[in-house]
Amino acid sequence: MAPITYDERLERLLSTAAAVFAAKGFHPTTMRDLSRATGMSLAGMYYYVQGKEELLALIQERCFQRVLEGAQGAVAQARGAQARLESFIRHHVTYFAEHMDEMKVLSHEAEVLSPERQRPINQLKRHYVGLLLDLLGDAFPAPDGRVDRRAAAYGLFGMMNWIYTWYDPDGAIAPDTLARQFTELFLHGVAPTGDRSGASVSTSPQPARPAAR
Amino acid sequence: MAPITYDERLERLLSTAAAVFAAKGFHPTTMRDLSRATGMSLAGMYYYVQGKEELLALIQERCFQRVLEGAQGAVAQARGAQARLESFIRHHVTYFAEHMDEMKVLSHEAEVLSPERQRPINQLKRHYVGLLLDLLGDAFPAPDGRVDRRAAAYGLFGMMNWIYTWYDPDGAIAPDTLARQFTELFLHGVAPTGDRSGASVSTSPQPARPAAR
Repeated sequence: MAPITYDERLERLLSTAAAVFAAKGFHPTTMRDLSRATGMSLAGMYYYVQGKEELLALIQERCFQRVLEGAQGAVAQARGAQARLESFIRHHVTYFAEHMDEMKVLSHEAEVLSPERQRPINQLKRHYVGLLLDLLGDAFPAPDGRVDRRAAAYGLFGMMNWIYTWYDPDGAIAPDTLARQFTELFLHGVAPTGDRSGASVSTSPQPARPAAR
Repeated sequence: MAPITYDERLERLLSTAAAVFAAKGFHPTTMRDLSRATGMSLAGMYYYVQGKEELLALIQERCFQRVLEGAQGAVAQARGAQARLESFIRHHVTYFAEHMDEMKVLSHEAEVLSPERQRPINQLKRHYVGLLLDLLGDAFPAPDGRVDRRAAAYGLFGMMNWIYTWYDPDGAIAPDTLARQFTELFLHGVAPTGDRSGASVSTSPQPARPAAR
């Protein structure tokens, strides 16, 4: 068996750290906790990173880099604008179904890092959001005005990213199935095909905005 | 002017604490930070709560209680199963567009509390999820098998709850408009009406799952 490389050890450190941050939260976690979880000595960990802030930055940066590159690869293989959009959704859902710890850390600890550390991460994020906006524009070049493109994009990200709060990849719905269902939901909605005759949201007089504000 | 009641002062304390927790995170926040932010003395705050854990529990419990009661009220005023579902969505979006700090705290700090403190909150959550599942069942009693009902419900919650990461209630899209767009998206999907002829997700051969795993 080939010896474990620098990069492989760093990968393991990052993935274990992501699991600990996801379970315990970033702030309460100490380097000592991470040493226990990884089986690495403190000195061994400091050989790779300066501290837990750098670990968090690397987790976020690598994760966004991979999901962006993976999405670009998946999209490049698909034929037709709508198929490319579907590939993007399938890739995002199946990738994060296998990386729910990272997903949780990305969502919860986005603002913990210093502005300098956040900058490259935010750039990757913007790139990734831009990719989805472009795919939406290509798939539906003549929007009918019902749903704003940005609202649709962030609605889709919300739908897909929220899975870390409820979804069990080993449960009744396999990741590929969930991806297909979310694609259906996003493209065509939950209303069964037969129910679509009435189209659009009911425009009957709306009750006053609820009192609970 | 009537003197400020016990309950009003507690309300203000909770809403300021929610803003501080949302901005700074629960763990790094001290009672001293909250004293500065509220302008209340430490002794004054301890008159209301035993500490920041109890504050967090009260924020979560009151918020779920209100959103549940508000939803029940909104739904009761609507006529017809689909209109009730639409009311639920409109209420959730407009409520949380005005309570984004609470939304963020609810999402990020759900697991910080002790099991005893979590129990009543989880009960409210189950009740609220159950309400949406019932509304979905009533609106679409004969699902066509494209989207699992639970996946649809959690997809919708994800779409709506994720707004705390990107949405500006004072920006270009007003809360009522966002609610209407999300209702459209959830019921009928993003594909323009004309594009629906092809129906369903393309079943052309799928590329292999992406390498980035």
